[in-house]
Amino acid sequence: MFGVLIYPGVEELDFQGPWELVGMWHRYAGGPKPLLIAQSDAPVTCAHGMRVLPDETFSTCGALSYLLVPGGFAAFDEMNNPVLTNFVKQQSEHVNAILSVCSGSFILLAAGLLQGRKAATNWKVLSRLRQAGVEVVEDRFVRDGKVWSSAGVSAGMDATLALIAQEAGEEVASTVQLNAEYYPSSKTYGSAHRLPEGAAYFRSL
Amino acid sequence: MFGVLIYPGVEELDFQGPWELVGMWHRYAGGPKPLLIAQSDAPVTCAHGMRVLPDETFSTCGALSYLLVPGGFAAFDEMNNPVLTNFVKQQSEHVNAILSVCSGSFILLAAGLLQGRKAATNWKVLSRLRQAGVEVVEDRFVRDGKVWSSAGVSAGMDATLALIAQEAGEEVASTVQLNAEYYPSSKTYGSAHRLPEGAAYFRSL
Repeated sequence: MFGVLIYPGVEELDFQGPWELVGMWHRYAGGPKPLLIAQSDAPVTCAHGMRVLPDETFSTCGALSYLLVPGGFAAFDEMNNPVLTNFVKQQSEHVNAILSVCSGSFILLAAGLLQGRKAATNWKVLSRLRQAGVEVVEDRFVRDGKVWSSAGVSAGMDATLALIAQEAGEEVASTVQLNAEYYPSSKTYGSAHRLPEGAAYFRSL
Repeated sequence: MFGVLIYPGVEELDFQGPWELVGMWHRYAGGPKPLLIAQSDAPVTCAHGMRVLPDETFSTCGALSYLLVPGGFAAFDEMNNPVLTNFVKQQSEHVNAILSVCSGSFILLAAGLLQGRKAATNWKVLSRLRQAGVEVVEDRFVRDGKVWSSAGVSAGMDATLALIAQEAGEEVASTVQLNAEYYPSSKTYGSAHRLPEGAAYFRSL
């Protein structure tokens, strides 16, 4: 099973982008089934108001093969939720890979998974993660051992596709990419990305 | 209100990608609020099993400013659901823009909105839409008057960002793009996309 953690205020695309790619991996190439996992079985209201239903809770989901940890402003609250961070820590011990998206990196940090590791995160909190002693990489995503982390929001999709390529091979990733028609436009609008505190990988676009 | 149509079997990213961008438009630049709209208020189970709760039904949502019509294999069932196609047709008469993603184009077709228009769709059904008499464009997305349509699944994000640029200006689209950190990798995996029946915009990547 590919566990996808959710919690109140989670940013929608952080988990829904990866969800689609894992779903295609499952549908077309026998990959693990994606499941939404939350602390309780109540509906979860996300950052922009979308309400989703968990498939499993921390106590029912058993041992996962993969765990995705999305972000959002609410990740900074969940850092201080020991039930959630203990769940992440315990699952991390046996998963093939754990992947944070956006500020989900701070949940990995709180679970003790980023000590001595490289990590990516949302551009707004690059310095905050650096101040916590993490070797921050201003890239779309980075892998350090079995811990993957991506930049903000949509970057989780690029990280997930790279993870699928590593786990199942280039041609499986190719099939997933084709079925999600994930050949995005390279168009960059306006000038908002040219801010000095932006991540290196996009501020010079 | 930016209405986002959902129905049983809808492909997750078709609506969840655009949802995130519209959510950022609403949060950071005063854009319309996104709302999930379904025929009934029961939870909707999507193509890969994610269960989401509608915010409004066809009878409660009132007049929308925008309507997004996502796809999935189930779109071919919904083409034959007159309650849904009538809802789409009625809303289309006053919205600023209507946008189909993936095979959502076939719902627009059934609602009578593609006669004499250019449209994009999922690469798997390009010829099927062409056979229905539509001028099919093998591009990431296309606009024809107030009817927008995109290629498959992830392509809805590129179309939505272009729609935001048209409706609110280049710098608002720039702000949305930055906050979603939507600067995707241009990496293409393997060779699956080089199939002869692929869409022109990606088969030569």
